Amino acid sequence: MKRYEALAEELARSIQAGVFRPGERLPSVRQTCAARRLSPSTVFQAYYLLEARGVIESRARSGYYVARQSPRLPPEPEASSWPDGDSREVDVSELVFQVLQSAMQRDRVPFGSAFPSPLLFPMAKLGRALASAAPELDPWSTVDDLTPGLGELRRQISQRYLIDGIDVPAEEIVITNGALEALTLSIGAATRPGDAVLVESPCFYAVLQSLERNGLRAIEVPTHPRDGVDPEALERAIVRHAPRACWLMPTFHNPLGATMPDTAKQAVVELLAEHGIPLIEDDVYAELHFGPKRPPPAKAFDRNGLVMHCSSFSKCLAPGYRIGWVAAGRFRDTIARNKLTTTLNTNVPAQHAISRYLQRGGYDRHLRRLRAALAEQQAQYIAAVARDFPPGTRVTRAGGGYFAWIELPEGIDSLEVQRRAARHGISIAPGPIFSASRGFARCLRLNYGHPFDARAEQALRTLGALAAEAQTVRE
Amino acid sequence: MKRYEALAEELARSIQAGVFRPGERLPSVRQTCAARRLSPSTVFQAYYLLEARGVIESRARSGYYVARQSPRLPPEPEASSWPDGDSREVDVSELVFQVLQSAMQRDRVPFGSAFPSPLLFPMAKLGRALASAAPELDPWSTVDDLTPGLGELRRQISQRYLIDGIDVPAEEIVITNGALEALTLSIGAATRPGDAVLVESPCFYAVLQSLERNGLRAIEVPTHPRDGVDPEALERAIVRHAPRACWLMPTFHNPLGATMPDTAKQAVVELLAEHGIPLIEDDVYAELHFGPKRPPPAKAFDRNGLVMHCSSFSKCLAPGYRIGWVAAGRFRDTIARNKLTTTLNTNVPAQHAISRYLQRGGYDRHLRRLRAALAEQQAQYIAAVARDFPPGTRVTRAGGGYFAWIELPEGIDSLEVQRRAARHGISIAPGPIFSASRGFARCLRLNYGHPFDARAEQALRTLGALAAEAQTVRE
Repeated sequence: MKRYEALAEELARSIQAGVFRPGERLPSVRQTCAARRLSPSTVFQAYYLLEARGVIESRARSGYYVARQSPRLPPEPEASSWPDGDSREVDVSELVFQVLQSAMQRDRVPFGSAFPSPLLFPMAKLGRALASAAPELDPWSTVDDLTPGLGELRRQISQRYLIDGIDVPAEEIVITNGALEALTLSIGAATRPGDAVLVESPCFYAVLQSLERNGLRAIEVPTHPRDGVDPEALERAIVRHAPRACWLMPTFHNPLGATMPDTAKQAVVELLAEHGIPLIEDDVYAELHFGPKRPPPAKAFDRNGLVMHCSSFSKCLAPGYRIGWVAAGRFRDTIARNKLTTTLNTNVPAQHAISRYLQRGGYDRHLRRLRAALAEQQAQYIAAVARDFPPGTRVTRAGGGYFAWIELPEGIDSLEVQRRAARHGISIAPGPIFSASRGFARCLRLNYGHPFDARAEQALRTLGALAAEAQTVRE
Repeated sequence: MKRYEALAEELARSIQAGVFRPGERLPSVRQTCAARRLSPSTVFQAYYLLEARGVIESRARSGYYVARQSPRLPPEPEASSWPDGDSREVDVSELVFQVLQSAMQRDRVPFGSAFPSPLLFPMAKLGRALASAAPELDPWSTVDDLTPGLGELRRQISQRYLIDGIDVPAEEIVITNGALEALTLSIGAATRPGDAVLVESPCFYAVLQSLERNGLRAIEVPTHPRDGVDPEALERAIVRHAPRACWLMPTFHNPLGATMPDTAKQAVVELLAEHGIPLIEDDVYAELHFGPKRPPPAKAFDRNGLVMHCSSFSKCLAPGYRIGWVAAGRFRDTIARNKLTTTLNTNVPAQHAISRYLQRGGYDRHLRRLRAALAEQQAQYIAAVARDFPPGTRVTRAGGGYFAWIELPEGIDSLEVQRRAARHGISIAPGPIFSASRGFARCLRLNYGHPFDARAEQALRTLGALAAEAQTVRE
């Protein structure tokens, strides 16, 4: 157990024992550091873990308090030896499309959606930024701002890296049509058809679709629901399969919500560098942290230019604008060229609009509001799962993002639950779409990025009942 | 010789003989039809051919007049047996990038550029459409208008097809990041690595780069500088190579400017259908016709859903907005899915802005102005080439678009000219970047999409002198 985990456990016990009562203020970070001779980051991590678990809550400019609703939450899923460690061809797209088609209808309860509520974003303010940028657009910028993209926007992205202590020069950045194009270009730059690629298990279905389209083989590495990929498991897979690339989402993993500890991120980057294996890092949720600090990306530990760090503004600021990027290290030229020959360029007015929005300030204020909303929704959704789902249900409590990974009790098939839920107008994302080996039959991904309103509350109750029914039928 | 060509020849002779003097009005189309018992389309085609050659000029709402500067223009290049008909792996990207990098610098005279002057487009008006659309954007449209794209925009595109007499339902259309993504998705849907693909020779270098990236083999089919691909040559190549797809630009070909006669388009579509071969049709320049009518696309003759018609607003309305589409026939679902898994979606505000611009009207007025400007520039540039280039130079006179294909006299290497021109701040696109077999050593593509100002005039003079010098050195 790590130091911050030990501290968190101890505080949790104190709270359970009534030393701190619901609504009471906890000792400040500074006090705790001094009292226990711990570093601020250890104390922050402990508080942040407790906050993610709903045990305590932070209040702006005031500190941490014991949560008023003392939680009786379901446990988190355990690590398991889900994947068999084989490398296999991928054939998951058909299933994914079937499931997603039903999730994309607006009248569905969007628990299966990959997007948070668009109402969480400053669409009107962005629209004004676009409105003021568009008519002033220098016509020549349609020629000058070809790939790699608008210089000013790349400079601002570089600046945000620097604020987080990461040195990524603007020259290394290529602007893309959302993070998905960044990932598409990155896997294309690092592999050739037939190559094997290390992926998490479970992993985001778009990873599997991308491998399938590119004729690549997936090596699924067991992924812990809270701590993500274990560097030792990764090393075993490297030795066994000689993969050509590794594709991970180390922070607020989709679908698990897992975040690799900083030390594990560093270990993985160093391990891959030893073997000369490029890392494609999908980091689209990092800005949605519920703790005080954005967890560092694996890119922060890159000394060899082997990490392609892919992100976007789609999940944290501007959905629908399709502005993403890759900080591509030594693959920068290859990626810029492949972008030039596949989609040529990224929408120019949108690049100017986002650049202008960032200049005007207000992004960090928006992010704080967005994080607070998601953290609150997480607590509400998980409490509802605890109340309404069959006993034995487990659920992850991510430190950020808007996905919870639910493990239903033995004997419940999430594809069956998905079919029943669809008939009730509720979408879910069943476990098997997140795995090349079609594992995770009793798991599902729950999107809590939409307000916990009466409809959501009722739908979760229905979903819990459907899950229970599905279990009965099976027995 | 076709009927319209015979009429054009006859009129040209009358003009040369002084029957019609510079500045005089020609008989109206109606008069000529009646006098010679010809159909209006034959007469229009003859006038349009003469106009493209700079012999006559049209004046709005008034008719056709003998051009004031009686032209003494260089002849058009001849058809030739350039490609050897072999199928080959493609390895042209490095050369293309070297050449294009120098063309993309703003201080260069952009004869080698692939883009027309951005000043020819209604950027301010589009900006206002964007400005009014953006703040009113329904946040849900970022979710609802996922691929295949904004329904209203697809409806408007379908409507424009219908006005040209082509039945393409909105359901068949997928909105893309410019035409290049449409082409990328189309070739991906029709082929697998190792397949052979029929292409024109010369052809747009992006075609070659795309084949190279996808591990496809190119079969170069001889392409006539005025009439494009000959159906019989295409048939021979089909029989010999059993290609998996065919990729053509039948209207205002890049780099030649060639347009296939309607009958040849129809013959090619029927021939490919017989062999079950999909046609990827790049049709981005069709709206830039100098004649009275937009030449029909090959898609107009498609009865089997085998033609993927790719186009965009980038060359005729909105550069930098990256809004294109493919009318994908039976490949529609595959393409929509591949788009969802590679770039997910196309910029939503830009789709709304273009849709709104189209609703407000003014697009056709803009197009008329744009066509007139390009036609005038074509005449100016070609006259300058006639004046300033070495004797024996040949140049195509396209019926639309903004490219002229120049064939220099024997013994001049266009790559050498390109290097010398670069030192004088002038970019050109040398012939070898348009061929997998690196042919066309004494050809170059000239972009006349920029105003014929003093700088352009001087640069053409310099270019002509450099070409003459390069010839001397060789002798």
